[in-house]
Amino acid sequence: MIVNPKRGLLFLIQTSFKPLLILFIWDMLVVIGYKIFNLHWFDQSALPTALIGSVLVLFMNFRNNTAYNRWWEARIHWGSVTNNCRSFARQCMSILDSKPELIYAMAGYAYSLSYHLRNKNSLTSYNVKKILPHSIQTYIKNQRNQPNGILVQIGYMVTQESRQKNIDGALHSQIDRILSDLANAQGALERIKNTPLSIQFSTLPRLLSEVICIILPFSMVDTLGWITPLGSALVGFLFLALDRIGNDLQDPFDESPHSLPMLTMSRSIEIDLLEQINQSSQRPIPSINGIQW
Amino acid sequence: MIVNPKRGLLFLIQTSFKPLLILFIWDMLVVIGYKIFNLHWFDQSALPTALIGSVLVLFMNFRNNTAYNRWWEARIHWGSVTNNCRSFARQCMSILDSKPELIYAMAGYAYSLSYHLRNKNSLTSYNVKKILPHSIQTYIKNQRNQPNGILVQIGYMVTQESRQKNIDGALHSQIDRILSDLANAQGALERIKNTPLSIQFSTLPRLLSEVICIILPFSMVDTLGWITPLGSALVGFLFLALDRIGNDLQDPFDESPHSLPMLTMSRSIEIDLLEQINQSSQRPIPSINGIQW
Amino acid sequence: MIVNPKRGLLFLIQTSFKPLLILFIWDMLVVIGYKIFNLHWFDQSALPTALIGSVLVLFMNFRNNTAYNRWWEARIHWGSVTNNCRSFARQCMSILDSKPELIYAMAGYAYSLSYHLRNKNSLTSYNVKKILPHSIQTYIKNQRNQPNGILVQIGYMVTQESRQKNIDGALHSQIDRILSDLANAQGALERIKNTPLSIQFSTLPRLLSEVICIILPFSMVDTLGWITPLGSALVGFLFLALDRIGNDLQDPFDESPHSLPMLTMSRSIEIDLLEQINQSSQRPIPSINGIQW
Amino acid sequence: MIVNPKRGLLFLIQTSFKPLLILFIWDMLVVIGYKIFNLHWFDQSALPTALIGSVLVLFMNFRNNTAYNRWWEARIHWGSVTNNCRSFARQCMSILDSKPELIYAMAGYAYSLSYHLRNKNSLTSYNVKKILPHSIQTYIKNQRNQPNGILVQIGYMVTQESRQKNIDGALHSQIDRILSDLANAQGALERIKNTPLSIQFSTLPRLLSEVICIILPFSMVDTLGWITPLGSALVGFLFLALDRIGNDLQDPFDESPHSLPMLTMSRSIEIDLLEQINQSSQRPIPSINGIQW
Amino acid sequence: MIVNPKRGLLFLIQTSFKPLLILFIWDMLVVIGYKIFNLHWFDQSALPTALIGSVLVLFMNFRNNTAYNRWWEARIHWGSVTNNCRSFARQCMSILDSKPELIYAMAGYAYSLSYHLRNKNSLTSYNVKKILPHSIQTYIKNQRNQPNGILVQIGYMVTQESRQKNIDGALHSQIDRILSDLANAQGALERIKNTPLSIQFSTLPRLLSEVICIILPFSMVDTLGWITPLGSALVGFLFLALDRIGNDLQDPFDESPHSLPMLTMSRSIEIDLLEQINQSSQRPIPSINGIQW
Repeated sequence: MIVNPKRGLLFLIQTSFKPLLILFIWDMLVVIGYKIFNLHWFDQSALPTALIGSVLVLFMNFRNNTAYNRWWEARIHWGSVTNNCRSFARQCMSILDSKPELIYAMAGYAYSLSYHLRNKNSLTSYNVKKILPHSIQTYIKNQRNQPNGILVQIGYMVTQESRQKNIDGALHSQIDRILSDLANAQGALERIKNTPLSIQFSTLPRLLSEVICIILPFSMVDTLGWITPLGSALVGFLFLALDRIGNDLQDPFDESPHSLPMLTMSRSIEIDLLEQINQSSQRPIPSINGIQW
Repeated sequence: MIVNPKRGLLFLIQTSFKPLLILFIWDMLVVIGYKIFNLHWFDQSALPTALIGSVLVLFMNFRNNTAYNRWWEARIHWGSVTNNCRSFARQCMSILDSKPELIYAMAGYAYSLSYHLRNKNSLTSYNVKKILPHSIQTYIKNQRNQPNGILVQIGYMVTQESRQKNIDGALHSQIDRILSDLANAQGALERIKNTPLSIQFSTLPRLLSEVICIILPFSMVDTLGWITPLGSALVGFLFLALDRIGNDLQDPFDESPHSLPMLTMSRSIEIDLLEQINQSSQRPIPSINGIQW
Repeated sequence: MIVNPKRGLLFLIQTSFKPLLILFIWDMLVVIGYKIFNLHWFDQSALPTALIGSVLVLFMNFRNNTAYNRWWEARIHWGSVTNNCRSFARQCMSILDSKPELIYAMAGYAYSLSYHLRNKNSLTSYNVKKILPHSIQTYIKNQRNQPNGILVQIGYMVTQESRQKNIDGALHSQIDRILSDLANAQGALERIKNTPLSIQFSTLPRLLSEVICIILPFSMVDTLGWITPLGSALVGFLFLALDRIGNDLQDPFDESPHSLPMLTMSRSIEIDLLEQINQSSQRPIPSINGIQW
Repeated sequence: MIVNPKRGLLFLIQTSFKPLLILFIWDMLVVIGYKIFNLHWFDQSALPTALIGSVLVLFMNFRNNTAYNRWWEARIHWGSVTNNCRSFARQCMSILDSKPELIYAMAGYAYSLSYHLRNKNSLTSYNVKKILPHSIQTYIKNQRNQPNGILVQIGYMVTQESRQKNIDGALHSQIDRILSDLANAQGALERIKNTPLSIQFSTLPRLLSEVICIILPFSMVDTLGWITPLGSALVGFLFLALDRIGNDLQDPFDESPHSLPMLTMSRSIEIDLLEQINQSSQRPIPSINGIQW
Repeated sequence: MIVNPKRGLLFLIQTSFKPLLILFIWDMLVVIGYKIFNLHWFDQSALPTALIGSVLVLFMNFRNNTAYNRWWEARIHWGSVTNNCRSFARQCMSILDSKPELIYAMAGYAYSLSYHLRNKNSLTSYNVKKILPHSIQTYIKNQRNQPNGILVQIGYMVTQESRQKNIDGALHSQIDRILSDLANAQGALERIKNTPLSIQFSTLPRLLSEVICIILPFSMVDTLGWITPLGSALVGFLFLALDRIGNDLQDPFDESPHSLPMLTMSRSIEIDLLEQINQSSQRPIPSINGIQW
């Protein structure tokens, strides 16, 4: 996630340079053909451009809204993971009279979830191996869904602890509710990951944007003349930029500068949790060049 | 659900070929009539086209938004089924000290729900017959709403188990809450299935799209001349494509490439659940030609 | 609710015939006046038409969105009634060891709610009188809000039953929660019924549509000539159709073909509930001419 | 709240008469200046009008959506107050074995909340003084937030009653949950009241509407001639009407015909509650001239 | 937050004066160049302006919607903090038989949260130091997330109190649920703070607005002539205003006149809470020049 606006603008300009240049050259060729080689059939009506443009705007609007909503929904569910991890830690400290092992397990859960959403084995990661209790590491070794396995084990440990310390059932079930909320948040994140944006909304906009960019100079060359490349490239570039924005946001778990900073958030959970049992944790992950990972 | 973008694009092109061809021929006929047979009344004002177009865009926008929201809402409720099945399994393992029969029953519930939403008898399916405990199979045999019958039976078994093992009422009621959440998710899925998109929103857009496609060349033939078919067919095709997209999404439980991959999700639930009791399950269902079923 | 698309289209055409004819005649008169009697001031600028049209589209868009959302929200809350009735039945069968009287009372509640939302006395209905326990019928006889009275009585019976059978308080409170959820769903349905769509949004669109239909031919007659009635009537009809769609949806509890099929849903609840206590119920209500009531 | 459409239309016409007249006179002056005094610079390009118009439509759309959503959200939370009051009464009757004093207190809470949202002291109102138990009246006398004080006192009385009658803690906490839900609904209503719609969205649209009304005739006078006032006044009036609609809805707790009928709803809660303890209540508040207060 | 509309309008005019002046001068220069120095190439087609304008409107619409939703969502979560603080106080008074220390701690929590969201150390603030119990002040001294630390300590004190006074587990868990709800609200506020609006949506609109302002006079100078600066500056200013509105709303926790009045709300919580234990509190924070801080 890009957190520094200046850096973001720079980033935008860098990645835009190439398509902008290609557009400019194409527009230049059209003007030269029209003005110098007198290819007068180059001048075409703006009607189809306008019609395609308005349909495209409809498409883009819908796609970008949806892509952004997916991204923001993913962020909300990660927030829910954070909140429930904290509430779980609070309950461990008060209701269960402090049980550090459970707090370590929960910090490991957050890391494991972030690796799971990037299709990685949690147990190959330093963060998980360091903090997750060994009994749980053994349990989840061969599981397909490792964070779910951790949750099941935490549930099991909470039940053991509650029985041993003779905790009231209502309080125990209050902790179980937090685990169910975590399961809901995890399931929602997996849903966003496993259900790509409908194919029609992710492929058609790009196609249409490119068609628009190609036909745009023909409908401008007569009225704008030699400054056609300026106007046409600017407009065309805007459509391409809109498409790229939607594209950047639609997969919030990729390892791109636009995706959710899952590692930063997992670390932040670790810190919040260990702070409660007075354990020192690793340091927060700094943003690199204005980008959080 | 189409998961492979390239495959999706191919799919889009294949199904679009026929209407595009018809459109092209129609546009060609209009141009020939105008240019060769000099039928000058073929040239008509663009005003009605523009007005109908803007109303159509309003319709389309609303319909496609709604259709997508239905589809996505259905996906959310299936996600909720997944989450609650997992939470139920966790509770069976911890609170009820592992009761494999209940976990098998819950895996069967997910399959049964997916068949129920496609109007099929669960008991004719291999997946359900293999995994659902026989006592429940007998109970639901003649029921109209089989997954609901399974839930009722699971509730009954949980109560028996809780009384026998002397589980605290608060913990028992926490499990019951998960069953109510499953009932809510199931009811929401049935609601989407049984309440088609209002008839006005599903039939008018297609009619209007076809009207637009027919009158489009008349308002372009004078300005575009011989390239009318290019512009007109492209624009007309876009409207038809928009209509088809809305159509594809509005019934998320059909057996079409665009509907929810209910079988894949049910299998995924089975795997997640059996993993917790160390039972081997069937293998995940692979996507076929980039399509999940 | 219209469930058969073909029937729906037919229905649309039937109810549209009259306004379409009136529009056509009006447009014809304008053309005749312009072309034959040479009333040249009939030809007017399209500017006000376009401006009014765009404001109208804004209005319509908002109104139809809101009307549809009201309709869909009502459907969601009816779905919630269904889900909670089922969950209540499950709890009766498991937690309360089967108490048929409660299940009959709950089936009666669903019917009573559907009559209440149509301002009818539940006790005049065969469905309610047949299934609702007599003690409750006596209790609610003079109440203004009969379904609420039934809920209160069910709550009372559940408490009696729980005390008698010595049910744990946490489980009892889990049943009470379902009753609160039903009260929330009922209140939400009453809210939609008692709060009509703001007067500005339900009266202005119709007025504007009619103004547009009247002035439309004047701004087209010069460019379209003798085919003015075709274009103008089509466009005008679209605006009227949009208005009617919003109108149809804004009162989801009316007894019109467009309102919620409350009787069908109540019957469906009865069937789902009685199935659990192995009682035969009345048959599902079939759709008549493609319309569910 | 206006509940009678005919009355609503009349109301709309009455309040619109004056601005419509002023607009008409202004437009007339412009036409006279142009046609009779030949002030030809009166004829101006429509370009800035169109551009300002489209920005205004954007503003209006956003503002009116937001204003309506605020209004409807307030209505939802009042619905939530109604539902939870009813659920509380049901619990009093069943779980607490009928405690009329609590039901009177809750009916008083609803009235008190409606006065609080209009910045009035509840204790100056006949409705509250008649129904609220005296001990609570004494307690809240000097409080800044009187309905909150009533809730705290009800919570206290429920606890006393539960301890005395030896009610199970889980059932007691189920009642407490209803009180928390009421606190949430009250807080949400206060939030809407205390957070006015952002100043930019409530002042700019009116300013822009007036600017549009002033410049509109200049861009029409050449094409429309003597019927300019008809077209221009109609269009201008629409913008003013749109602005007024947003204005009417943005403060749902005012004492205007457009605000929520809080007194009617409070009375309705009183009736529903007293009906359960067989007490006669005051009569429902009738709508006056098609308006509920 | 600006609460006085008149003051708001004044504020708007003040901050707009400078860009409006610059725009006016630029537009004047273009007119002078065109009319006096006869630079006829100054007259350019309006096509690119219109196209860029429509894409910009799309951008703006999305950005301002999103910015407003962020702002309003933040307000909702602060409302949730208020509601849960009140419910907690009610539970302290009834379930825990009044424990003033907990109520002081909760009032301190609200203040601490508002400082935390502005990246300040709570313990440097008079409000927190005065009201927060000393034991908690010591505990959170070195914590990174101070309000979370307070919540954990409150949870601990509630457990101590419950055990000592022998409170039923179900009632204790009801209080714990309120703490979890507070943790959710806090997490949601932190999410909004830590996740800036996607860089593309916050930088591109400003850039485009400035481009539009620069090219606008060129497309108007021929038709409008000497009144170009009036039309062009007005339109350009509107785009800049739209951009600024979105900008003002996108960071709801800044110390600007447009951000949430967190201090006022925290004070209001303190008053509501201390009122219940009959303690005098500080006075409400008045709005200064129509602005709440």
